[in-house]
Amino acid sequence: MRIGHRPVRDHRVTTHVGLVARALGADGIILEETVEESIIKSLERVVETWGGQFSILRTRNPRETVVDWKKRGGIVVHLTMYGENISEELLNYILSQNGDILIVVGGEKVPSWLYTHADYNVAIGNQPHSEVAALAIFLDRLFRGRELLREFPGAKIVVIPSKRGKRVVRRNESK
Amino acid sequence: MRIGHRPVRDHRVTTHVGLVARALGADGIILEETVEESIIKSLERVVETWGGQFSILRTRNPRETVVDWKKRGGIVVHLTMYGENISEELLNYILSQNGDILIVVGGEKVPSWLYTHADYNVAIGNQPHSEVAALAIFLDRLFRGRELLREFPGAKIVVIPSKRGKRVVRRNESK
Repeated sequence: MRIGHRPVRDHRVTTHVGLVARALGADGIILEETVEESIIKSLERVVETWGGQFSILRTRNPRETVVDWKKRGGIVVHLTMYGENISEELLNYILSQNGDILIVVGGEKVPSWLYTHADYNVAIGNQPHSEVAALAIFLDRLFRGRELLREFPGAKIVVIPSKRGKRVVRRNESK
Repeated sequence: MRIGHRPVRDHRVTTHVGLVARALGADGIILEETVEESIIKSLERVVETWGGQFSILRTRNPRETVVDWKKRGGIVVHLTMYGENISEELLNYILSQNGDILIVVGGEKVPSWLYTHADYNVAIGNQPHSEVAALAIFLDRLFRGRELLREFPGAKIVVIPSKRGKRVVRRNESK
């Protein structure tokens, strides 16, 4: 879930959060109602073209979403530069809980309820950087890098990794 | 080096690229001349407040910068979803070359000279996502996660990692 989106100003950053979530193994993204329709559309287009399952949901009330998630047995991880540092031990502990994980990323300012409602406040380093980067590194470490090798069923375009230039295969019929 | 910046539209994304470079262990960033002064200023402010050494340079001609870098014995790594996949072997090979590494990230469209001039075209997965995320994961893997534990000398604010809420120490005199 991405919170604290500022329309216009965060247009690209929120789009990148969505693309990173999809490319790095998340099952979906939850966005606030203030998020521009054009962001939803552009994420939908990527899913249609590049394949895989990825849900794009909206929430009217992020706090309720967090509370409901926990009620249903899920785990809430808030990525913040003020949190405890990411480590193998912490990731193993989170994984050992065996619940669906809701990762919450904010922008520069985050409401204080999030720090208390989150099960884990995790820092990807204690320096200011980027919610896009924090999400990317968290997912990369959570999945031990395996997420980059996943296949995306139904893709209309598939990249053939190449040392020089661009090679793609276009499929007319999606599987 | 960040190329392909589109003024206004990429304002936040280019700022995030700079912040990620700094927070995740790069020595500096090279930006194009078209990059807004406000981005430079906001990166400078972060360095002043949060410490460490981080150079912010401009280039009139990214292609010349790449050519010069290689002439001086450096290695050029272009992060692109079309490249060969990142792997331990590839990272070890790059590190074994023992040269200064220039990481180049672009946006949606990248000039074709970059694919041929780069020593390595490296994919952080072959899905569309984000130059911010690609840079973050590349640096995190290159430095084996150690970059997150670095100290930033001269910081005016230091975060005390915390399971709940925000704890910071302010230092009046920077070392």
